[in-house]
Amino acid sequence: MLRVPYRELEDVLAGALERLGFEPERGRLCARLFAEASLDGVASHGLNRFPRFVQMIRRGLVDVAARPELVEARGALERWDGRRGPGNLNAHACMNRAIALARGHGLGGVALARTNHWMRGGSYGWQAAEAGVIGVCWTNTMPNLPAWGAVDPRLGNNPIVIAVPHPDGHVVLDMAMSQFSYGTLESYRLRGEPLPVDGGFDAAGRPTRDPGAIEASARPMPIGCWKGAGLALMLDMAAAVLSGGSATHQIAADPNEETGLSQLFLALDPGPADRAAETVAAILAHLHGSRPDGREPVRHPGQRTLEVRRRNLELGVPVHPESWRFAREL
Amino acid sequence: MLRVPYRELEDVLAGALERLGFEPERGRLCARLFAEASLDGVASHGLNRFPRFVQMIRRGLVDVAARPELVEARGALERWDGRRGPGNLNAHACMNRAIALARGHGLGGVALARTNHWMRGGSYGWQAAEAGVIGVCWTNTMPNLPAWGAVDPRLGNNPIVIAVPHPDGHVVLDMAMSQFSYGTLESYRLRGEPLPVDGGFDAAGRPTRDPGAIEASARPMPIGCWKGAGLALMLDMAAAVLSGGSATHQIAADPNEETGLSQLFLALDPGPADRAAETVAAILAHLHGSRPDGREPVRHPGQRTLEVRRRNLELGVPVHPESWRFAREL
Repeated sequence: MLRVPYRELEDVLAGALERLGFEPERGRLCARLFAEASLDGVASHGLNRFPRFVQMIRRGLVDVAARPELVEARGALERWDGRRGPGNLNAHACMNRAIALARGHGLGGVALARTNHWMRGGSYGWQAAEAGVIGVCWTNTMPNLPAWGAVDPRLGNNPIVIAVPHPDGHVVLDMAMSQFSYGTLESYRLRGEPLPVDGGFDAAGRPTRDPGAIEASARPMPIGCWKGAGLALMLDMAAAVLSGGSATHQIAADPNEETGLSQLFLALDPGPADRAAETVAAILAHLHGSRPDGREPVRHPGQRTLEVRRRNLELGVPVHPESWRFAREL
Repeated sequence: MLRVPYRELEDVLAGALERLGFEPERGRLCARLFAEASLDGVASHGLNRFPRFVQMIRRGLVDVAARPELVEARGALERWDGRRGPGNLNAHACMNRAIALARGHGLGGVALARTNHWMRGGSYGWQAAEAGVIGVCWTNTMPNLPAWGAVDPRLGNNPIVIAVPHPDGHVVLDMAMSQFSYGTLESYRLRGEPLPVDGGFDAAGRPTRDPGAIEASARPMPIGCWKGAGLALMLDMAAAVLSGGSATHQIAADPNEETGLSQLFLALDPGPADRAAETVAAILAHLHGSRPDGREPVRHPGQRTLEVRRRNLELGVPVHPESWRFAREL
């Protein structure tokens, strides 16, 4: 695996985006969001996702010049139109706006319609935590998850992000409603490994740990079975209602055509920073005092991200040679 | 199973609560919240929970006279002290307050510290939806769920509720972070049935569908394994930080001593009611058009509740004879 210095990765992407028509400042931010995803170990939504992003720009599905527009303001809750702009820039702008609303009102919400894939959802959690607020956001997606009791995918896996700031390292959860993403299924299949727990159903409808069987049946498992399926539905419904945008069933069921998403961004003022830091530290200390079951270490959300980030800053960010060549030659 | 008319159930509970020292109006609301839980098929947090609630009043853990007090207002976000009052009255008051804040600010949040068990969390979702807003709330609980990779319970199962109003019946999700509650495990064990999916680990650390083995090991399964464990942690952290109250690790790990909980209530204005209703109807219609897998029908959150409510209003609310006698003789 090739490793490149973080700065070089961001610069290469920024240059490529400028050549694709981004204004320099917007291209720089977009590049940073892609590069940071790879830096943090989420290459599937970092550099490895970049070629598809470029393809969607070239096909006119992502408008590099479009900025989100305010549609309606109701005090602490606003509705914005993403105008099919770059999904990560739209999401970043809307979380920023939610943070600004939280500064004035204690909490703030922005519902965003007509946007594109936000790439790594965790980015907007880290962003909120960096700003010292609690961030909550979620997105709907194309249909890629069957309802509980169903065969055909009519739910999105609708990732949710919850972030709590902390001086020793923010605590950031970024999770989709399927037990494993298709990217993860592919990785296991390529390594020839079974999944650690049932990850979906095979063609005969039996729960299985065989990643290839799930890719073939298109029946991944929602987290907690009926529970995650229910949560996925609610996240889609809330995002679509609040933004006035599309629900999952209105989004093209093709990763290359997936556009017009709906999202919600919430920011909440955590109150006195000292008190919050103390509360978080005590919760984490108690958690890490758990009696281990001998299978795997107890971790808290965001912990591994910080470890990977530190290592990759030191050793360079691992890049897939093909994606890396694609970006440099753009 | 004995069935009693809904009105009689509520009246008996209201009478009992008045004799326990509740002011009439507060006793009536408290009785309604207990009775409605049974009406909707959640007897474990309705009439069947009533004896333990009374016991906690008698032992001084629940103060029937205490009303929640505003601690801090920051525009659309407020912090309240539950003063160890009745948990369902505190929760109802705080969701009401969040709804009022949403009327003024588009969205509103109330963080509540030092409260008691809110009984059926879904109550506050139905309450928000009845008021025409989207409601989101969650609570922490005593430690009753091990972290992923751990043996001893250091997380709460921290239920979350999300409700979206709809004229044909609100859509209300009410789910804890464990795959099955201890109440459900007990029901399966008493019926001699295995769980439909793995619900925890046995004493040897093996995933199991044997409800008794999970009760014995005290190792229920978080929904989605590491994912639900992570979500449980975040919900606890956010509730404790925002309310300034206790986190799960500070709450007594005994259902008879479980007090001093932290909760968060959010209400969001869904915008034009017609547009919202259309969006919700289209999402549900699409969902129910799923191709069934032949195991069980596709349902949306709240659907079964409405079916059970209708039946119990017609036939009477099923009551456990012992709990019913307890309430009548109080």
